[in-house]
Amino acid sequence: MLECLLYNTSSKPLSLTLSDKVCLFRPMLNMNCMSKSAERACLPGSGNDVSSRNGMEDSVHSFKAADLVIELSQTHKAKPDLTNLVFGTVFSDHMLTIEWTSNGGWQKPHIKPFGNLSLHPACSAMHYAVQLFEGMKAYRDADDKVRLFRPMLNMNRMANSAERACLPAFDRAELVECIRRLVQVDLEWVPKSDSASLYIRPTFLGTEPSLGVKKPSRALLYVILSPVGSYFSTGAKPVSLWADSKYIRAWRGGTGDCKMGGNYGASIYAQYEAADYGCQQVLWLYGDDHQITEVGTMNMFLFWNNENGEEELATPPLDGIILPGITRQSILELTRKWGEFKVCERYLTMADLRCALKEGRVKEMFGSGTACVVSPVGRILYQGENLHIPCQDDFPQLASRLMKELTDIQYGRTQSDWSVLV
Amino acid sequence: MLECLLYNTSSKPLSLTLSDKVCLFRPMLNMNCMSKSAERACLPGSGNDVSSRNGMEDSVHSFKAADLVIELSQTHKAKPDLTNLVFGTVFSDHMLTIEWTSNGGWQKPHIKPFGNLSLHPACSAMHYAVQLFEGMKAYRDADDKVRLFRPMLNMNRMANSAERACLPAFDRAELVECIRRLVQVDLEWVPKSDSASLYIRPTFLGTEPSLGVKKPSRALLYVILSPVGSYFSTGAKPVSLWADSKYIRAWRGGTGDCKMGGNYGASIYAQYEAADYGCQQVLWLYGDDHQITEVGTMNMFLFWNNENGEEELATPPLDGIILPGITRQSILELTRKWGEFKVCERYLTMADLRCALKEGRVKEMFGSGTACVVSPVGRILYQGENLHIPCQDDFPQLASRLMKELTDIQYGRTQSDWSVLV
Repeated sequence: MLECLLYNTSSKPLSLTLSDKVCLFRPMLNMNCMSKSAERACLPGSGNDVSSRNGMEDSVHSFKAADLVIELSQTHKAKPDLTNLVFGTVFSDHMLTIEWTSNGGWQKPHIKPFGNLSLHPACSAMHYAVQLFEGMKAYRDADDKVRLFRPMLNMNRMANSAERACLPAFDRAELVECIRRLVQVDLEWVPKSDSASLYIRPTFLGTEPSLGVKKPSRALLYVILSPVGSYFSTGAKPVSLWADSKYIRAWRGGTGDCKMGGNYGASIYAQYEAADYGCQQVLWLYGDDHQITEVGTMNMFLFWNNENGEEELATPPLDGIILPGITRQSILELTRKWGEFKVCERYLTMADLRCALKEGRVKEMFGSGTACVVSPVGRILYQGENLHIPCQDDFPQLASRLMKELTDIQYGRTQSDWSVLV
Repeated sequence: MLECLLYNTSSKPLSLTLSDKVCLFRPMLNMNCMSKSAERACLPGSGNDVSSRNGMEDSVHSFKAADLVIELSQTHKAKPDLTNLVFGTVFSDHMLTIEWTSNGGWQKPHIKPFGNLSLHPACSAMHYAVQLFEGMKAYRDADDKVRLFRPMLNMNRMANSAERACLPAFDRAELVECIRRLVQVDLEWVPKSDSASLYIRPTFLGTEPSLGVKKPSRALLYVILSPVGSYFSTGAKPVSLWADSKYIRAWRGGTGDCKMGGNYGASIYAQYEAADYGCQQVLWLYGDDHQITEVGTMNMFLFWNNENGEEELATPPLDGIILPGITRQSILELTRKWGEFKVCERYLTMADLRCALKEGRVKEMFGSGTACVVSPVGRILYQGENLHIPCQDDFPQLASRLMKELTDIQYGRTQSDWSVLV
């Protein structure tokens, strides 16, 4: 409602009235309340509660999993040893590709042998970063069944990113079904291990073959699969962070709440500067008051006794500059269900943190994301000073508990409707 | 110097001292003073005054035009009728490609038939927008000679964008020479017209074939050519602009001063919202005081009597959020040489503009860029109010004069060392 009200009092010409289309202009802002019903409705043809600038009702005009054309690979690559595998370097035997044109709409989805893409050299994904991606995983449980974790949340976020990137809408449940079929084809690539998984990378590119900066008339949605080992294979070590306002990850009026490529490429330079300072990742700050926003490519959580002496788990609110992480949302929902301490989406500044550290009020700080689930923070270099964050036994209590509860659901050890069988 | 001083008082740990490398960390900021000498030194092997994070001295490790491998196309496409040609939709017969790997360095440059690129589906240009481009033109003069306009300025900007994108350094003069050879191969594609030209699009992609967000170990630099007609073929019409702070093009700590793809893809959505309001382009604002920054994909100039009653040509300063346009720089240098009015790089807010319009102090406002040279602004929709900008005869006096002086140089009608023969 806030978005609608803001809209109504904005600088729109008076000749325009507030319509449903206007209300849904940035549907991301409504995602928290939408996501539960959308997640439950994880069935093909039901995922049409995000309207788009194109006015396309995705359930009507989308590709359909029932139309899948499957061409199996004649060769099979050897499965890698996951022990020392670098993330995202090995891919499975097949990929999913779905083409779209403004004239012909969505074409039939294809599952075919993994291989290079043939792209026009003027392709808008390569000149103007008309591109977005998602990150999710398939897990093999103790009964040898393969599971996805809250896949509709990825689809919702992907649909929102697509709208922001001026890429066409699609039926999110149909895409989940296509991904499920792809994973079935490459089922042997899902590691038989409760610490490894098959990383799933949906990618969506504008493939307009001309140089004008405009909405693409062609697009390519594809999905590739990469087996990944344990994030903490060499033992969990708390990460060190470089906190400096020299580089800003995202800003209001930008694309920080969407999983668009431009957010990531622009961050690499800062990542290497962090390394120059002996830190592993960047703690992204925002504004003159140095608000804490994200950690590397993860959301950020602080577990502390807040200014009022309340025990609180805090993370920045989804105000447009924060990526709405699936793990972030799951942590908020889990801990709210526990009801053991205050759980709050709120602003946190470096001054708040420094003061709390001085007064011994900080319990834990950690990043959250699909790759690691949770990743404790041990040290922050800020204004020339090393701030040490409490980290009992390298993996503090709340982070450990969240890691266990979430992976128990992901690997099917705990029954939950967050886990969807492939 | 300012950058060095700021650096010295920043939050760097005291154990680090100010080095030359640190001074050149964001060499873009020194570009204005560097560009003149760099531009004069437009000879292969001399372009090594930008150092990089990689510490690579580009003249030593770069590809060389002397190593060019040329494979001519067996077929020749028909040249298009330029009258109603949409920008960037038709390409010439050949392209330049140069590959780089972290192990092998730069490979030999190739000129070969124009065709699709074969790219790994995990390519970092397509997931994390590790990509940048340039825009320049080749012009045919009355003596049938073909000319480039200040190509080393494009190369300097490209080298700075490459550094920011964590792509490898290269010898800028060698790239100009490679481009010159490409244009020679496709010389027939340079239109025989003093209102058309051959648009040149250098592009630089990270082609890392894995999913970690990191500096790419592979890259591809390529150049494609597209014949373009007159920007004002249907007559010069002043553009209308939608000014709203809802979308922000670039921000301090971001990549707005580099020609990286992410800056452009994120702008398309706002462009269509501008169209919803009956405006052709976005006037990009910044900050609570609504500073005027850029127009669509152009730099912005205001010609007015300023607050102190001085006749002034003003454009925002290169403070990190403004693209350092070649046309922008040329307009500043030309008008400073004229010495007829004050020429100033300064901040301008919407309040400044609105007040000046009320008091009748605005003479002209225009965008500048490679595609149009200059493009007058006729109307700005701001906070529900249409601000009308003076526009005598659709193409006001200063814009007309700049258009003539610049195109006279580009098409060789005026002798200038800004124009370089192919």
